[in-house]
Amino acid sequence: MVLWHAHILTLFPEMFPGPLGMSLSGRALEKGLWSCHAVNIRDFAPGRHKTVDDTPFGGGAGMVMRPDVIESALLSIPDPGQKIYLSARGKPLTQSRVQELARTPVVTLLCGRYEGVDQRVIDAHDFEEISIGDYVLSGGEPAALILMDSCIRLLDGVMGNNQTVDEESHTNGLLEYPHYTRPAEWIDNAGKTHTIPDVLASGNHAEIARWRHDQAQATTRERRPDLWNRRK
Amino acid sequence: MVLWHAHILTLFPEMFPGPLGMSLSGRALEKGLWSCHAVNIRDFAPGRHKTVDDTPFGGGAGMVMRPDVIESALLSIPDPGQKIYLSARGKPLTQSRVQELARTPVVTLLCGRYEGVDQRVIDAHDFEEISIGDYVLSGGEPAALILMDSCIRLLDGVMGNNQTVDEESHTNGLLEYPHYTRPAEWIDNAGKTHTIPDVLASGNHAEIARWRHDQAQATTRERRPDLWNRRK
Repeated sequence: MVLWHAHILTLFPEMFPGPLGMSLSGRALEKGLWSCHAVNIRDFAPGRHKTVDDTPFGGGAGMVMRPDVIESALLSIPDPGQKIYLSARGKPLTQSRVQELARTPVVTLLCGRYEGVDQRVIDAHDFEEISIGDYVLSGGEPAALILMDSCIRLLDGVMGNNQTVDEESHTNGLLEYPHYTRPAEWIDNAGKTHTIPDVLASGNHAEIARWRHDQAQATTRERRPDLWNRRK
Repeated sequence: MVLWHAHILTLFPEMFPGPLGMSLSGRALEKGLWSCHAVNIRDFAPGRHKTVDDTPFGGGAGMVMRPDVIESALLSIPDPGQKIYLSARGKPLTQSRVQELARTPVVTLLCGRYEGVDQRVIDAHDFEEISIGDYVLSGGEPAALILMDSCIRLLDGVMGNNQTVDEESHTNGLLEYPHYTRPAEWIDNAGKTHTIPDVLASGNHAEIARWRHDQAQATTRERRPDLWNRRK
């Protein structure tokens, strides 16, 4: 049974499912836990030249995607669900928004190219504007893959163990504690011996839990004062 | 001439170049402006079972990638350049770090799976820990694709017009102003007419520049008080 479906409005439908067709999400796709369908925006461009973009009003570099073409592509989807425009101007994606979106059965992801999409169609059709981070991409497609990946792994039956999800970074507002595995004594290429923190071999579960919590707090305070301060 | 090369340490080499082999970055790949090479970490796992991971010391869900296996994979690269581990525990990626990394001719991107990588090998080999955002992914591979995409588009000869790069979101600490293109009067599916802001049709370049700057400021202040406050 499909738990989650993504419509994708894009000029590059061949990018989907792409890397999501492999590994964890690929196995879930084969099992039918999620699905996606890429709609080629160019199919909705009028005229012989199938033009999707035009120069920006007010001048400037780059091209802007036309509102009428985007709307036609959107209207071809009978049930678009939650409409999202991936944009550097959007609200930053957070793990709590990911958790909500993973419980939203249908989403429609609009991927811009060039300078972006005419703002009127974003506003008229109430697209939620989401940014995956404070950097600029070649288009919305890589961002859509990220949003999809983050949601898919949370669907029931995709990951083996839900405890993993509860303990990881950003679930409780903290970065995760560091991980260690075998060998307990590891000699690196330069001949230096690296041991593991003693407490992890102690077998004392309460002390291990306390150490991990302290590590998560210390790492968050040091590396991400912004997260740390938001939390208090 | 190759301006930028990425080595990728991964359990899923078939994910690369993936979507980066298409569109803007795909054409740049064909032109030889950048290149990438995925190293399969599993090739460096010892024994018949080629095990790359083991249970975490101290208990808990999930598996952790072994330091010795990761080191062997890393040492197979003669010139790894800047070593980066994509991790939710890392420093958030910013456009200014992207600009620096685009000028770094060789990078090595370590992609974790499962619970992550043994912290000792990250520390011993001075991997820079970078996070692409405050959410959790199935592994480092989608994050590596994002980092690569953001760098590749900045390489000389990849985008047509450098003015585009100078005006976009995050380059000057502000979100970008909204874009508008034809038709100037757009009637949406519900019959509502949407015009463009008058100033953009005025032909007065100084006023247009001022309006756009005001819009960029207002949008940043409203949507991203964190960016706005960091800027002052």
